[in-house]
Amino acid sequence: MVVSPRLPSLSSLFSPAISRRPSSLLRCHHHRVRRPVCSTSFSAQSTVSETNGRVDTQTQNSNRVVDRAVTPRSQDFNAWYLDVIEQAELADYGPVRGTMVIRPYGYAIWEAIQDYLNVKFKETGHSNMYFPQFIPYSFIEKEASHVEGFSPELAVVTIGGGKELEEKLVVRPTSETIVNHMFTQWIHSYRDLPLMVNQVRLFVTSTATHFNCHLKKLWINLWSYITSNLIQWANVTRWEMRTKPFVRTLEFLWQEGHTAHATPEEAEKEAIQMIDVYTKFAYEQTAIPVIAGRKSKVETFAGAVRTYTIEGMMGDRKALQAGTSHNLGQNFSRAFQTQFTDESGQRQHVWQTSWAVSTRFVGGIIMTHGDDTGLMLPPKIAPIQVVITPIWKKDDDREGVLNAASSVKEALQTAGIRVKLDDSDQRTPGWKFNFWEMKGVPLRIEIGPRDVSSQTVVICRRDVPGKQGKVFGISMEPSILEAHIKDKLDEIQSSLLEKAKSFRDCNIVDVSSYDELKVAISQGKWARGPWSASDEDELKVKEETGATIRCFPFEQPQDIKTCLMTGNPAEEVAIFAKCIKCVDAFSFFPYTYRYRDIVRDQWC
Amino acid sequence: MVVSPRLPSLSSLFSPAISRRPSSLLRCHHHRVRRPVCSTSFSAQSTVSETNGRVDTQTQNSNRVVDRAVTPRSQDFNAWYLDVIEQAELADYGPVRGTMVIRPYGYAIWEAIQDYLNVKFKETGHSNMYFPQFIPYSFIEKEASHVEGFSPELAVVTIGGGKELEEKLVVRPTSETIVNHMFTQWIHSYRDLPLMVNQVRLFVTSTATHFNCHLKKLWINLWSYITSNLIQWANVTRWEMRTKPFVRTLEFLWQEGHTAHATPEEAEKEAIQMIDVYTKFAYEQTAIPVIAGRKSKVETFAGAVRTYTIEGMMGDRKALQAGTSHNLGQNFSRAFQTQFTDESGQRQHVWQTSWAVSTRFVGGIIMTHGDDTGLMLPPKIAPIQVVITPIWKKDDDREGVLNAASSVKEALQTAGIRVKLDDSDQRTPGWKFNFWEMKGVPLRIEIGPRDVSSQTVVICRRDVPGKQGKVFGISMEPSILEAHIKDKLDEIQSSLLEKAKSFRDCNIVDVSSYDELKVAISQGKWARGPWSASDEDELKVKEETGATIRCFPFEQPQDIKTCLMTGNPAEEVAIFAKCIKCVDAFSFFPYTYRYRDIVRDQWC
Repeated sequence: MVVSPRLPSLSSLFSPAISRRPSSLLRCHHHRVRRPVCSTSFSAQSTVSETNGRVDTQTQNSNRVVDRAVTPRSQDFNAWYLDVIEQAELADYGPVRGTMVIRPYGYAIWEAIQDYLNVKFKETGHSNMYFPQFIPYSFIEKEASHVEGFSPELAVVTIGGGKELEEKLVVRPTSETIVNHMFTQWIHSYRDLPLMVNQVRLFVTSTATHFNCHLKKLWINLWSYITSNLIQWANVTRWEMRTKPFVRTLEFLWQEGHTAHATPEEAEKEAIQMIDVYTKFAYEQTAIPVIAGRKSKVETFAGAVRTYTIEGMMGDRKALQAGTSHNLGQNFSRAFQTQFTDESGQRQHVWQTSWAVSTRFVGGIIMTHGDDTGLMLPPKIAPIQVVITPIWKKDDDREGVLNAASSVKEALQTAGIRVKLDDSDQRTPGWKFNFWEMKGVPLRIEIGPRDVSSQTVVICRRDVPGKQGKVFGISMEPSILEAHIKDKLDEIQSSLLEKAKSFRDCNIVDVSSYDELKVAISQGKWARGPWSASDEDELKVKEETGATIRCFPFEQPQDIKTCLMTGNPAEEVAIFAKCIKCVDAFSFFPYTYRYRDIVRDQWC
Repeated sequence: MVVSPRLPSLSSLFSPAISRRPSSLLRCHHHRVRRPVCSTSFSAQSTVSETNGRVDTQTQNSNRVVDRAVTPRSQDFNAWYLDVIEQAELADYGPVRGTMVIRPYGYAIWEAIQDYLNVKFKETGHSNMYFPQFIPYSFIEKEASHVEGFSPELAVVTIGGGKELEEKLVVRPTSETIVNHMFTQWIHSYRDLPLMVNQVRLFVTSTATHFNCHLKKLWINLWSYITSNLIQWANVTRWEMRTKPFVRTLEFLWQEGHTAHATPEEAEKEAIQMIDVYTKFAYEQTAIPVIAGRKSKVETFAGAVRTYTIEGMMGDRKALQAGTSHNLGQNFSRAFQTQFTDESGQRQHVWQTSWAVSTRFVGGIIMTHGDDTGLMLPPKIAPIQVVITPIWKKDDDREGVLNAASSVKEALQTAGIRVKLDDSDQRTPGWKFNFWEMKGVPLRIEIGPRDVSSQTVVICRRDVPGKQGKVFGISMEPSILEAHIKDKLDEIQSSLLEKAKSFRDCNIVDVSSYDELKVAISQGKWARGPWSASDEDELKVKEETGATIRCFPFEQPQDIKTCLMTGNPAEEVAIFAKCIKCVDAFSFFPYTYRYRDIVRDQWC
C-alpha cells in the first residue's frame, strides 16, 4: 500500500505504464482544478468580439488549446479517459492506492443512476435494507472450499477495539453469505417468499411512493413487508491489483439485489426481469446500446446457475460488462440451509438470484459518449442539462444581460429542466464554454446585449460542434423556449443512442470460422458467430486472441448454425470481444468452488 | 467477537443484563416475525362481530394479549424498546456482535430522514460526494497525540490482497482527516471557498433540482461545483463496548457534512445554520421537541471550538443527543496545513465545520412516541400513513368490500398519501389491527359491507386508542375523504409534537441550588439552572448524580442569574440530565488531544 501526501496525476497513478501526452499540452497542469488561464476579471478578457456579444471563434479556439490538457482520444484512449475524469472534476484519487474520491459532479451522475433505478426496483416489488459490512471469515469459507483462491482480494479486519479479534472479519466484497445467514432467520414458509403476480390493482403491497399503476408484473409478498426480495445501496471492497477510476477501484459503490423464491421458474423470471430493467436503463437513460445476453459457462459467476449480462461497446471498441443478474439456483441455500415449508408442508431449499450495477456505469457513460473536448452526457442522466452563459462587454450591458439570463433560468427551472446560470465575473465566456463542454452539459444558451434587444437566445448543442450545432434567434418567451429546449434535449438523447448504436453495429463482424474471428479481433472489432465448442476451446480463443465470450445475445439470428470452431451444429451465436481492461493478477472471485481452475472476473 | 448461527433475541443480545419480561408474555416468542396466532384463513377467524363488519372489541382485546409480547414500557423501558424494534420489524442483529441489519420498515424511516435532509442540504448550498472509507493510520495519528486513547474504538484492516499491509488502515470512524487531506489539494484561493450571500436570484450556482427560490441565505461557491461545502451519506465504524440498536452500533449510517471557510465568522454562521436545519427537522418532521444549545467545554467535541447539539427527551425522560454541529476553528486545518490565499494574497488556514445526524434518529423517534402497543410514527416520517383494512365475513361480501377498498386506496394514493391496502386473506382484521398498530401507522381505514352500502368508511387514529380515536361514516367520495385524511394527518403530527412538548416541559425543573438539582435528577427529571462553575464541578455533578450538562440552551431566561453551584454570577442556564445510555467502557473519541483526561462520548 502506498500513501503519499501529494500524489501524481490520476493517469499516472491508476495506470503507471501508459504513455503520457505531449508536455506542450500540460502547460497548466499543475493547477489541479482551475487549469484554464484567462484573466481573473472580465474586463481584461479579450475573447469576445465586438459584434453581437458573440465570442470570436478564432480567439475561442486558440484559447481552447491553452485551456485543456486532454490527451486526444484517438491517441491514447486510457490517458484520455483519465484526463476527462480529472478535468471534468468527476473523481480524484484517495490516499490509499486504488481508492477514489467521487467528487460532486461525478457523484451527481451516480445519484441520477440511483434515482432512476431505486424507483424501478420499488416498482418491481423490492425493498431497501442495510446489512453490516463486516462478515465473519467463516461465512466466506462456507462457500469457498479453497479460501486461498480468493483471499488475495479481501480486505481483512484483524483488530477491533484495540484487540486481536478471535475471528477475522472480511470487509464485504459482496453480501450473498450474510444475506443467506439472515434469510435463514426470516424465511420460514412459502408465505415469506415473494410471488409474481400479473394483476396489480388488487394485490399491490409495495409502499413505494413512486408506484406505477400500469405495471403488469410485480413481485409481492403474501404478508406485509418483504424481507426476501431486497436490495441495498452500499460500498464494497475488493483488493484489486490493477485499478482504474470508476471501472475498478478497491472500494466502490453499488446496488446489490438479493431474492429468494419458492420455485426455480420464479428465480429465473426474476433474474431475467432484472437484466431487463438494466437493459432499459442503459438504453433509455444512459444512451448506451448494450447487448444483453447469457454468459458462457466459463464466464458464469461462480455460484450461479446462469449469469445474464449487459455488454457495452466503449469508444475504443472494448467491451464493458455494465451489469449482471445471476440465477443462483440452490447453491447458496444449500450451503447455508436456507429452507422454507412449502404449501404441502415439505421443507425445501429456496431458489435465489442476485444482481448488481455499480459506479462502473459512470465509467461506461464517459467511455461511450466522450470526445476530444471532454465528457458528453446524455440529457436524462446529466446533472446539468442546460448551462446559460451571459455575454457582455460594456458595463452598461451587464445588468440587462444578467436580468434576461436570470429570467430564462427561472422559466426553464420551473419547467423542470436542470439548468445552471454561470454568471461569475471571474471567467471569460470562452473559458466558460470550454469548461461546460468539458463537463458534457448537453445544451448551452448564450445571451448577449443584442439577444436582449431582440428577446431571443442562441442555443448550442454539445454533441454537434461548430456552427452546425448552433441555432440563433430562439424566442425568450418561456413557453416557446421551454418547448424548444425540451425538443432539443430529446433529440440529443436519441442522437447519442443512435450514434452509439451505429458505431457498435459497424464494429461487430459476423464470422463463420476461427480465422475470421481472429481477423475481426485483431482489427479491434467484436466477432459474432455460432458457437457450440468446449470450455477448453473458449479458453484457447482467449489465450490466442485476448478475446472472451461476452455473451450469447438474447437476440439470435434464426438461420441454421454451424460452430465456427468445430463445424458441429450450434444453437446460438456468441459475441467475442476484448474487455475494457485486462487484469494481470488473479481476479477476485468470492465463490470459487465450482470453477476454481479458471481465472475469471465477476465484473469484466 | 461472538459469531453464532442462531442468536438469542435482540433484547438479550444488545443488553445482556436487563431483566426480562414475564414468560407469560413470551408465549409466541419463538416465532420470530409472525408471532400473532390467529388462523391461517379468514373463514376460521372469530374476531369480527356480526354487526357492521366491525371487530368485536372484547375479542379483539383478548386477541391482543396473545398477539404481542411487548414488555410494558413502564415496566422496563429498555426491554420495551428492543421488543418494539423486533416486532415492528425495524432491525435485526447481524452475525458480528453489536452490528445491526436494518430491515425494510426501519430503512424506510431512514430513507424518509434522508429525503428531507438531502433537499435541505442542497438548498443550503452543499454537494454530495463520496470519500474512501479506508484511512491510513498515520492520518489518525496526526490529530491524536496519544493514539492509545482511542485505538480501542477502531476497526483496523491489517491484511489486504492476502498480504500484511505496510501501513494499517482504519475503517473510517469519521472523515475529518481524509477530508482535510483532500481539501489541501482542492482549496487554493479564497475563490475555492463558499461564500454566504443574502440575495439568491442572481447568485445561485447550486444545481440542486429541489432548489427553493425563497431562501434568503445560501452558501455559494464563486466557481462552479463546490468542493469545500460538502456532505456524504455513508457507513462508519466504531468499536463500541456496549451497543443498542439504532442508538449505538458498531457500524452505523450517517450523513457527515464538512465545510471550509475564509473567516471564523462564516464558519460560526455555518455551524449555527446546520444545527438550525436539524432543529427544524426534529420539530417539523419527527415531532421531537428537541432543545438546541451549546455543549459545555467538557462536552465539546474534541477538536472543535464549539459544539452545538439538539437534545431530545425520551419516554423514560433520559436525554438523547440527536445531532451535533461543530465549529472546528482552525484545529484541523493547522494539523493538515489546509490553507488558502486570501484576497490580499496572504496564505491563511481555513476555518471549518462538521455536522452529523445518524440512524440514531430512528431510535429517537421510537423512544419519543412509542407506547405499550408499539411504535407510533409521526405522519410526515411514516413510510405508511394510512392502512386500509377491508372487513367481511360472508364470501358474497368479499368482492364488494375489496373493490371499495381498492378505490379508496387509489384515490388516496393519487392525492399523494402513502397508503397501504392490507387485503391478505390469511389474517383476521383483528390481527391486522394489532400488526399495523405495532408498526405505528398513524391512521387506519376500516371498510366493511355496511360501509360499502352507505359509501362511507371508519377512520381510527393510532395515537388515540379506543372509541375516542374512531370516526364513523366519513364519505368515500375522494375529495371529501382526501381532505379528511389530510386534516387528520396534520392533526396527529401536531398532537404528537404537543404531547411530547408538554411531557418534556413537565419534566424539566428549574433549580437554583445543587440540592435542588440532585432532587430533580433523582426523580428522573431534567434540571435547568444557572451555571458558571468549573469543569471540575461539572464532573463532580456527573459522578454524584449521573447527570451531565446536555447543553446551554439557545433560549435563555432574561433574569439575573446566580450559579447554582458556586453562588457566583452566571450568564446562562444549563440543562442537566441523564443520558439515554451510559457507556462503561472508555468512549471512542477520534480527536482526543484536547481533553484526554475526560471520558466522554461524541454522541451521547
